[in-house]
Amino acid sequence: MRLGVLASGSGSNLQALLDACRDRRIDAEVALVLSNVPGARALERAAAAGVPTACLPSRGQPDRAAYDASLVDRLREAGVGLVCLAGYMRLVTATFLSAFGPGEASRGCPRIVNIHPALLPSFPGLHAQRQALAAGVKVSGCTVHFVDEGTDTGPIIAQAAVPVLDGDDEPALAARILAEEHRLYPAAIGWIAQGRLSLQGRRVLLDGAPAPAPPLRSPDLRAGEVA
Amino acid sequence: MRLGVLASGSGSNLQALLDACRDRRIDAEVALVLSNVPGARALERAAAAGVPTACLPSRGQPDRAAYDASLVDRLREAGVGLVCLAGYMRLVTATFLSAFGPGEASRGCPRIVNIHPALLPSFPGLHAQRQALAAGVKVSGCTVHFVDEGTDTGPIIAQAAVPVLDGDDEPALAARILAEEHRLYPAAIGWIAQGRLSLQGRRVLLDGAPAPAPPLRSPDLRAGEVA
Repeated sequence: MRLGVLASGSGSNLQALLDACRDRRIDAEVALVLSNVPGARALERAAAAGVPTACLPSRGQPDRAAYDASLVDRLREAGVGLVCLAGYMRLVTATFLSAFGPGEASRGCPRIVNIHPALLPSFPGLHAQRQALAAGVKVSGCTVHFVDEGTDTGPIIAQAAVPVLDGDDEPALAARILAEEHRLYPAAIGWIAQGRLSLQGRRVLLDGAPAPAPPLRSPDLRAGEVA
Repeated sequence: MRLGVLASGSGSNLQALLDACRDRRIDAEVALVLSNVPGARALERAAAAGVPTACLPSRGQPDRAAYDASLVDRLREAGVGLVCLAGYMRLVTATFLSAFGPGEASRGCPRIVNIHPALLPSFPGLHAQRQALAAGVKVSGCTVHFVDEGTDTGPIIAQAAVPVLDGDDEPALAARILAEEHRLYPAAIGWIAQGRLSLQGRRVLLDGAPAPAPPLRSPDLRAGEVA
């Protein structure tokens, strides 16, 4: 399966995908990396891995649909079958969604995925880790989901949990979650590449039936001292 | 510390508290069990443990403040220092909240706690497990929190996570979460009995006061697809 990765920033999740493809841990290859930010570190990472890149600056592009149409053109030219958002700091338009919507080969699943640094539906949108700290939760994590028209509202493919510790600041929590992201995103994309996912309402099923537990870390927070 | 437990149903979390007190795993005793439902199994469990009970039927009691005032009277008579909601299917009124609000001995923490079968802030209110299944999350769990005027919105004391499996129905998920509830609730109440918790904004701290969390700027939820 040919992946197109969209990234605006450092691209550490892109790196996790590049590594997983290189090491044959998933049956996929990164065919194209697109960024809307000139000089994004993600572009350097792609180049270092020998992957084609394109940068289409979004700044000063008021026509979002036209911008997305140009992205879609590039992705199609590259033969991309699955679009992976990886720190892509823009909402995708209906133009984009319809170009990579559900297909027969994808068993009715959309062909755009995203990773978000919270246990959705908690803390969608920007600064998820900061939101989690302000809310005082003791468990947070990350979510891989199909992309729909909302902000981080699409069907959930996989989640991983991490503890939030009393002394955490935003960078500390973000780093703990990021380590799980780097594990979870390649795993989820590997399932898609193998055609193992299907949709049942808003539930994403692995192998169409009861499935092994998703990766789950630190199932227990602040318990066990007494019990 | 003398606990007053309010329960409307089977009282399995009450049982976990009774057992933890009996076995001296926590430095507390259940001084009174109140129910709003005649014949609730929770009342039988309390009686079997030799704990005083009272049943004040809430049905046909339109004056909620007056009803809560009568509960508060009973709890005060029993010398209750901490109110534990355990499957209590009513919202408590301001009357109740002010009677068991923050005090000096509680280090500024409210003196009413609740346990909820979801990872709050996801899925507050009724049928949390059903909500989680409908949303298609892969991780859920339970939350012990202080009670405030909202529905399951108070400061979070402890959380435990469990996987949601593809084949889960509501009873299966509820049972998996319940096993964690029975561990987490006594643990959290044990910390309160030891005076180990304090509040810093909405964050509940165990044994101290680390650096304050960064303030939450109002997130622009439409600005970014990925955070």
